[in-house]
Amino acid sequence: MLENIINNKNIINNNLNNFFKFEIIYKSKKSRARVGRIYTPHGIIDTPCFVGVGTNGTIKALDNKSLDELGLQLMFANTYHLILQPGSKLIQNAGGIHKFINRKNPIITDSGGFQVFSLAYGGVAQELKSKGQKKHDSSVLKINEEGVLFRSYRDGAKILLTPETSIQAQKEIGADIIVSFDELLPYNTDQKQLLKSLDRTHRWETRSLIEHKKNINNQALYAVLHGGIDKDLRKKSVETLSKLDFDGFAIGGSVGKNRTEMFEMLNFLMPYVPEDKPNHLLGIGDLESISGIIPLGIDTFDSSHPTRAARHGLLFTKNGLLRVFKSGNANNFGPIEAGCNCPACKNYSLAYIYHLFKSHELAGLTLATMHNIYFMIELMKSYREKILNGEI
Amino acid sequence: MLENIINNKNIINNNLNNFFKFEIIYKSKKSRARVGRIYTPHGIIDTPCFVGVGTNGTIKALDNKSLDELGLQLMFANTYHLILQPGSKLIQNAGGIHKFINRKNPIITDSGGFQVFSLAYGGVAQELKSKGQKKHDSSVLKINEEGVLFRSYRDGAKILLTPETSIQAQKEIGADIIVSFDELLPYNTDQKQLLKSLDRTHRWETRSLIEHKKNINNQALYAVLHGGIDKDLRKKSVETLSKLDFDGFAIGGSVGKNRTEMFEMLNFLMPYVPEDKPNHLLGIGDLESISGIIPLGIDTFDSSHPTRAARHGLLFTKNGLLRVFKSGNANNFGPIEAGCNCPACKNYSLAYIYHLFKSHELAGLTLATMHNIYFMIELMKSYREKILNGEI
Repeated sequence: MLENIINNKNIINNNLNNFFKFEIIYKSKKSRARVGRIYTPHGIIDTPCFVGVGTNGTIKALDNKSLDELGLQLMFANTYHLILQPGSKLIQNAGGIHKFINRKNPIITDSGGFQVFSLAYGGVAQELKSKGQKKHDSSVLKINEEGVLFRSYRDGAKILLTPETSIQAQKEIGADIIVSFDELLPYNTDQKQLLKSLDRTHRWETRSLIEHKKNINNQALYAVLHGGIDKDLRKKSVETLSKLDFDGFAIGGSVGKNRTEMFEMLNFLMPYVPEDKPNHLLGIGDLESISGIIPLGIDTFDSSHPTRAARHGLLFTKNGLLRVFKSGNANNFGPIEAGCNCPACKNYSLAYIYHLFKSHELAGLTLATMHNIYFMIELMKSYREKILNGEI
Repeated sequence: MLENIINNKNIINNNLNNFFKFEIIYKSKKSRARVGRIYTPHGIIDTPCFVGVGTNGTIKALDNKSLDELGLQLMFANTYHLILQPGSKLIQNAGGIHKFINRKNPIITDSGGFQVFSLAYGGVAQELKSKGQKKHDSSVLKINEEGVLFRSYRDGAKILLTPETSIQAQKEIGADIIVSFDELLPYNTDQKQLLKSLDRTHRWETRSLIEHKKNINNQALYAVLHGGIDKDLRKKSVETLSKLDFDGFAIGGSVGKNRTEMFEMLNFLMPYVPEDKPNHLLGIGDLESISGIIPLGIDTFDSSHPTRAARHGLLFTKNGLLRVFKSGNANNFGPIEAGCNCPACKNYSLAYIYHLFKSHELAGLTLATMHNIYFMIELMKSYREKILNGEI
């Protein structure tokens, strides 16, 4: 099935540039879902694709060689963390992030803005879902048209993050896909403030694009669509940014305080997002959300949920989440999930993984992480098959 | 060199039984050092051999498949920990420890006595090196001729550990080499108490042997030589136990409060230890001690030092210990040690491992552990070569 479709492929856009290419292999007839391929200097990303979060240049509890063997096609790394430790210049001196962390496959970095604004407005979760107010003890010193001045939590040094410095840092890091510098506003904010922020975000993203064009460096630059939970502003954002020469579109900011609001906003927004370029939904990846966003046409999305869940002993299976400490697991000499070909399931029993967690052994975290990542890779394969088979 | 000697091998003892065999390949002419091979149902152990400590059935921060790939020939697991979690019966139900933990190579378990007596007299370090006194809040309830009654720290259950129950538990666990149940006395103790303890240890070890003979189960049983820092008692212990049909001899208890005392005691003791059977030095494995004990004829020794050091960022190199945070490492894009073929050195730079430690990433602990274990394996190869070349 897949092979036939690939041979008769309908390439909507394959010449954005010579090192980055997006190909749509199949578009669903019953939804906006599509199966595609993003070509990067470090290989192919089959879409829809789950993007694992390796904040510091490693998926937690896993080394990158093991990760490449699992087959995760795209890893998300955080520019904010990397500029503070080890520094983007050091990564450049190492020959770029792929060489520094020994990863063969594609990498995407964000702009650093999300983390810096989280510092200003409180934790990420509070910021997106509750009353975000500037924290009293924030390490963010100044936010103005130029950018954001903040203090490193590591050594107290003042760091100025602007569209230009963010892009420059992302050039030094050298991921395959980089992201424009944007302003992230709290969920609860008034219309006037939102509009002011949106206009500034668009100016910052334009400056990001100008900086990027000075030295493309075989990297693709994504815009970030904003507008919060206001449909008119979301529409304005996509209309503004899609006129510019970005290689793809990330969806950022708050898209709603719950899953229903998110689906409604994406259902409204996605028809406006240029379909010939890849899109990425930032920071969403729980299993229920995935089943909802794929029919809306999302190509890639990143989430630390599968790996964080693994470290908390929550194992992904076709029958839902399995708590490692669930009664009966201590004596279950079968794998986490029958038929799973991940290194944890091929080599170890659920009883042993239970024992490792019970004994606080780090190997338990590694094996659970391998399983959940592999589960996500297989899940995305099955979603692509379902789209190709006309089921989504 | 090695091949010639193997072809003209001088087999001192190769028929202890049909599943366990010790072969001496070469005896040094300038020291008591020897190169040998222990054959077990799960493969060969080349001696002298470093034995990695996998207390709960895993080397900390490493899974057993990766460990087998590194080539560690013998792993030490702790019966005390395993009977409390997951329980020896569960391991038996899983098909034995090799199957339960997915280890292809040989395993040795101790009797559980060491940990239980540590509970009674305080931490292992204090117990061996300072004034050991029964702790007020000890979970050890009773020590008598029968054995030791203690309370599980996990669920408060009372557990009776005797020569018989220890051997039975070790049969259920199913390691290739098991160890007799012994009494471990504090370092500072009077002569009368020491003699009383030694006699009881010999009675306990005899009971262990009797229990073992009821069901040999393709396992080899080692005696534990005691006598503390008293040479006469050490001599008495080896003379008493070498008359019995043990498959090998472990050296237990305190052999001195520092390295000098240890070397002096082993120098005295080793000529009395039967040379046709393998011996094992319990709980010693720092690099300086190793260089001293090999010329004294030690075949195997276990230590958690190399793996614990790794987790604390101390990397083993031919030029000594390298602190991961040493100035300059942040920018060192070479491996931990040039020429090292371990997975950490083959795939990652010192700068990246520094970064992982600095970022508190678990992958750093895994890579450092791989390196130190591999270093120990290579170090032991070089010691064997040196003996064969007449250098030791």
